[in-house]
Amino acid sequence: MAMATSGRKLASQQTQQIAMHTEVPGPETKKLLLEYSEIGGGGGAVAMFLDLEKSNGCYVVDADGNQMLDLFQQIASLPLGYNHPSLKAAHQDPLMQVFNISRPALGLFPCKEFPEICKEAFMSIAPEGLTKVQTMLCGSSANENVFKAAFFAMREKERAKIGQKGFTAEEEASCMNNQAPGCANHLSIMSFHGGFHGRTLAALTCTHSKTVHKLDVPAFDWPTADFPHLKYPLDQHKDENAKEEKRCLDHVRSLFEERKSKGTPVAGLIVEPVLSEGGDFHASPDFFKGLQKACEDYGAAFIVDEVQTGVGATGEMWAHEMWGLPTSPDFVCFSKKALLGGYYYKDHYQPPGGYRVFNTWMGDPCKALLFRQVVRTIKEDNLLERVKVCGVKLRDILDRAAKEAPAYVDNVRNQGCIAAFDSGSPANRDKLFSTLRNNGVFVGVNGTQSIRFRPPLIMEPEHLDQFEKIFFDTLHQLKAN
Amino acid sequence: MAMATSGRKLASQQTQQIAMHTEVPGPETKKLLLEYSEIGGGGGAVAMFLDLEKSNGCYVVDADGNQMLDLFQQIASLPLGYNHPSLKAAHQDPLMQVFNISRPALGLFPCKEFPEICKEAFMSIAPEGLTKVQTMLCGSSANENVFKAAFFAMREKERAKIGQKGFTAEEEASCMNNQAPGCANHLSIMSFHGGFHGRTLAALTCTHSKTVHKLDVPAFDWPTADFPHLKYPLDQHKDENAKEEKRCLDHVRSLFEERKSKGTPVAGLIVEPVLSEGGDFHASPDFFKGLQKACEDYGAAFIVDEVQTGVGATGEMWAHEMWGLPTSPDFVCFSKKALLGGYYYKDHYQPPGGYRVFNTWMGDPCKALLFRQVVRTIKEDNLLERVKVCGVKLRDILDRAAKEAPAYVDNVRNQGCIAAFDSGSPANRDKLFSTLRNNGVFVGVNGTQSIRFRPPLIMEPEHLDQFEKIFFDTLHQLKAN
Repeated sequence: MAMATSGRKLASQQTQQIAMHTEVPGPETKKLLLEYSEIGGGGGAVAMFLDLEKSNGCYVVDADGNQMLDLFQQIASLPLGYNHPSLKAAHQDPLMQVFNISRPALGLFPCKEFPEICKEAFMSIAPEGLTKVQTMLCGSSANENVFKAAFFAMREKERAKIGQKGFTAEEEASCMNNQAPGCANHLSIMSFHGGFHGRTLAALTCTHSKTVHKLDVPAFDWPTADFPHLKYPLDQHKDENAKEEKRCLDHVRSLFEERKSKGTPVAGLIVEPVLSEGGDFHASPDFFKGLQKACEDYGAAFIVDEVQTGVGATGEMWAHEMWGLPTSPDFVCFSKKALLGGYYYKDHYQPPGGYRVFNTWMGDPCKALLFRQVVRTIKEDNLLERVKVCGVKLRDILDRAAKEAPAYVDNVRNQGCIAAFDSGSPANRDKLFSTLRNNGVFVGVNGTQSIRFRPPLIMEPEHLDQFEKIFFDTLHQLKAN
Repeated sequence: MAMATSGRKLASQQTQQIAMHTEVPGPETKKLLLEYSEIGGGGGAVAMFLDLEKSNGCYVVDADGNQMLDLFQQIASLPLGYNHPSLKAAHQDPLMQVFNISRPALGLFPCKEFPEICKEAFMSIAPEGLTKVQTMLCGSSANENVFKAAFFAMREKERAKIGQKGFTAEEEASCMNNQAPGCANHLSIMSFHGGFHGRTLAALTCTHSKTVHKLDVPAFDWPTADFPHLKYPLDQHKDENAKEEKRCLDHVRSLFEERKSKGTPVAGLIVEPVLSEGGDFHASPDFFKGLQKACEDYGAAFIVDEVQTGVGATGEMWAHEMWGLPTSPDFVCFSKKALLGGYYYKDHYQPPGGYRVFNTWMGDPCKALLFRQVVRTIKEDNLLERVKVCGVKLRDILDRAAKEAPAYVDNVRNQGCIAAFDSGSPANRDKLFSTLRNNGVFVGVNGTQSIRFRPPLIMEPEHLDQFEKIFFDTLHQLKAN
């Protein structure tokens, strides 16, 4: 097959046998589940236990020895699949041991190699116009700290307006009691219905993808805007979709206006390029441009959460780079395929003084070392091109499946390898998901009745040939029942 | 010197030369700081850059080659000092590479070794009565998830009271908009003035140690109780201190009562055994027993945050084990010396269903592997006994210093090697801190005018001999100026 990529094929990228010995979860997973449940079971959502040593490239091996083609990759968090040779090499870097066993508190006492590692790992792929980076441990922590930076900036503006310099005694006293004016309780972050930004309580306030995330947990009284529910395929419903996007932009502006008029302005707006956990909702570049413009008009930070879409998954390093924004977003958050959390930000969002964005670890230099190697591998192996080629091929397979089995495959959409479709019902989706899994292909679910694909960047067209055969076999099997 | 410990002395535990070539921060740190500032500077609080490869045992080496006795240990987060041989061995475990480069999403797809690792690392040192453990990535994340578990339990009780099973349609709908009754906005977590529980927004709501943490950040309207301000030494002010503790317990109960009477009950109370960031505030076992009793009376979870005090720092594995509680706390949170965050909990706080306590990574098996080795080393090298011996010796040194230089050293207090004193003023504290540092001893600061000690568990009495000489020299130097 003709390849638009470098052609070099590593062992980890070769197709392998799919080998199913049991249903999933199999007896060994069930045994481990019982054992794990005795000490809490890790929260109660464990689906299967893995044999990570035997997992390789695009293939995951479970505790029962079932080898599956894994198109979900640890909730979209493995950029190079399992046990990639270049990461094996990075693990052998003598600094890896040092950083692992003598972990520094990066915000106070970073290792002397850290600025250079950050430049090579993060700044070498920074979106244009974003000059600063802050590492954290996970996506929730990244987002919560971005919120803080947005609040600081808004409060600085509010103080400048009244000519106040520094903090008042009343601010210093009231903040220790969780009260205004010291705590900026009048400020908020706007988010979208269907969006997901993490599960610590402020991040969760901005999350609206599933009730199970939010029930019984207190939330801030922050505004939630409608995100466009577009008709797919996008290019066949342009006028309707434009109307829907206009409606949602109007809603965003009305929420900005409502809060502004009450003296409780919105300090930032956070959005994913593809609303992933919620069900892979897409929108047009014009919609995102409109969001940025609304943020500018209301003096709010425009925050793009690329935790799931970033690091090459769409075929661009960052999904928002396809929007053609006149200027970069104020913040771009990453995690998952970046192997640790963090965010890029513009100069003027530098925290006004030390210890305002701070915690003990502020990231993990081990993961930064690994991510530097991921970035090198993406460049050397021309992986973004691979993702584009595979994205086109995956889309074609899904489009053909939609014609053949619309009760199971409908509303196909993708940006590169961020691909998804809806089934006709939640029950059909669940049946398709579990049958596929027992047939040796592991995909992700999201929303109420969607299936999502989050393959690693090293996926080859041959893996998709393998997927296609099993996918169509599975659809025929389901239709026959 | 006679040792109450095993006597086996590893290279990493031997005293070494303190060697200062420059003031701290030195020219190399300053150069790196400029370089790092160009890309954000990691938040703006960096004090020095480290040469972690050269750091060893109790000694940290900075980028300028200064070798200092480090009694702060990366904000109390290194249990075995720098580059401990047993952790070098753990790093060589073949699983370390696999877990590092093929990191699993532990809540959904844990590696098959994880239940066993959790048992050996965490459950083997679980406080009595705490049967379950949940790993997370950091202390903030641990605490935020504990809050959730406490909210779930309180809502279950509220539902049981009115005979409601499952969620109402109104709950399902309202939660997606951040509103009651779906979001438990009437519930809260009580915390203490001077306490520190992390810096994500809900954890930060429970944090009241410094204004710089809280200014300009929105907080939940949760109650804050007075923590006793005791007179030291504790054994010379028993009556006064008992009165102060009674006053604070009454305050706690009045806050519980106030919220209960409004129909907005407190779901949990969180407290540190020693309020560390706030300035090392101690209280008696009776006080903590009183807190537990108040929690029981009001049906709230009793949450002990051992992020800074846990894993042997006091000479007990967990500081709260010295309180003689009739039953264990409902939750005990850890991080720092545990190398990753997490918490122990009682059976009946198991989340009512999967995905309610959940995120992508839910910890890091690499750090769990390391921590298993830490636990083994603590046991094999009898480190808790070492901490007790060193705690007594450190206390004696500080007590003598307090007699000699009370303007710099006052109100000495300790529990094992969690030790601190106040200086007579913030300026004196800062002068003592920086002069000590330039003389080759690195300690921590906290509160407004305190210095804290957070040495590693491998510290030997000989290290304290070395500290004593420099400490008294420094005090003489300061008094002479």
